[in-house]
Amino acid sequence: MTSLEEAETEETVTCLHMTFYHPCQEEKMMFRCLNFRRREQVRADELAKFGRDSNICRYNLMDSRVSRIQFSLQFYRKLNSTELCFEIKNMSKKTKLFVGHTELGYLNKTDLPQKCIICFGDYQILAEIQEGESMDYFHTRLHLTEVPILQERCLPSPHPVPESGISYSLFPSQDRSPTETDENKSY
Amino acid sequence: MTSLEEAETEETVTCLHMTFYHPCQEEKMMFRCLNFRRREQVRADELAKFGRDSNICRYNLMDSRVSRIQFSLQFYRKLNSTELCFEIKNMSKKTKLFVGHTELGYLNKTDLPQKCIICFGDYQILAEIQEGESMDYFHTRLHLTEVPILQERCLPSPHPVPESGISYSLFPSQDRSPTETDENKSY
Repeated sequence: MTSLEEAETEETVTCLHMTFYHPCQEEKMMFRCLNFRRREQVRADELAKFGRDSNICRYNLMDSRVSRIQFSLQFYRKLNSTELCFEIKNMSKKTKLFVGHTELGYLNKTDLPQKCIICFGDYQILAEIQEGESMDYFHTRLHLTEVPILQERCLPSPHPVPESGISYSLFPSQDRSPTETDENKSY
Repeated sequence: MTSLEEAETEETVTCLHMTFYHPCQEEKMMFRCLNFRRREQVRADELAKFGRDSNICRYNLMDSRVSRIQFSLQFYRKLNSTELCFEIKNMSKKTKLFVGHTELGYLNKTDLPQKCIICFGDYQILAEIQEGESMDYFHTRLHLTEVPILQERCLPSPHPVPESGISYSLFPSQDRSPTETDENKSY
C-alpha cells in the first residue's frame, strides 16, 4: 500500500474525540497513563474499556476511587442504516454515569450522541464523534483540558468560563499535560 | 459460604440456554469444543464470543466456514428497569445473522427476546433466557439436538418433525453427543 492510499484510508476512519477534565488533575495525575499524543486504533470487535484495572482496561484512570472498569464503549452499526455509532455502558456498581441528561446505573447502556458530556464523580469528558466509513476499526483521540467542561459542576476557577461551560479549543494542536505534584485522595 | 447459601445464590443467576443444530454435525463435529455437560459462568463485563478463533472466542465452532468471531453476546440491564437482558451482535462480515425475523449485517445488534431462534449459514440455535437476579455474572447452558430447530431450513430427515419445527425436549437431562466420522466442508 502506498503512503497516499494509507492517507486516504486514514481519512475515512471514525474517530471518537474525548476531552478529559478533573478538578484535581494537576495534583492527582489520574490521567497520566492516557495517551494524549496521538490517535489510537481500536478493532471493531474490541470493547474499549476505561477504568482502574490496567489488566482489563485499555484506557487507565489512575485513581483508587475509580472502578476496576468504569465504563466501556462498543462500536456498532445501526440496523437498516450505514451509520456507525458508539454505545456506552456503565460498568461501575458504585458510581452513576451521566451521558448528557441520561443517568446510567450499573450495566445500563445508551448510544453516544454525536457530541455529549459524560460525567461520573468529578470526572467530566466531552465526547465528540468524527464520522468515518471503516467498519473494521475506529480511532480514539484523547485530549486534556484545564477548565471544567460542565459549568454546573465547576469548582471555583481562576479562569473565566463562558455560559456554555466550554471555554477551550476542542482539538488543540498542542496537548497540555498536568504538572506533577503530590497525590491526594479526592475523587 | 455454606453449600446451602451457594445453592440459593445459584438459583438467582440468569441462565441463557442455547440448543445447537447443524445438518452435518455428526460428520463434521463442529460442536466438539462446546461444553454440553454443565453451566458455565460468564462475568457481566465479559463479551461472550462465538466463533472459529479459540484465542478470542470462549465458545468455539470448529468449522473453517465460520468467521473468526461469528457473533457476540453482552449482558446488560435495561434503563429504568431491573430487567437483565442479552444483546446479540453479528461480528461476521460475510454471513448474515438472523435473530427470529430480524436480519443482522456486520456489526448490527439487537436484543435477544426471551425465546428465539438464531441462524447463520446452516447453523440453528434455539436461545432461551431463564431469568435470574445476579448482576455480576450470568450462566450459559449449552444443549445439542439431532433434529432441525427451524422447519423451513430442515434438510430431509428420517425423524418426523412437528409443525413447530421443535421436536425435542429443550433441556434434556442427558446430552447427546455427535458420533465421530470424517470431516467434510459443507457449511
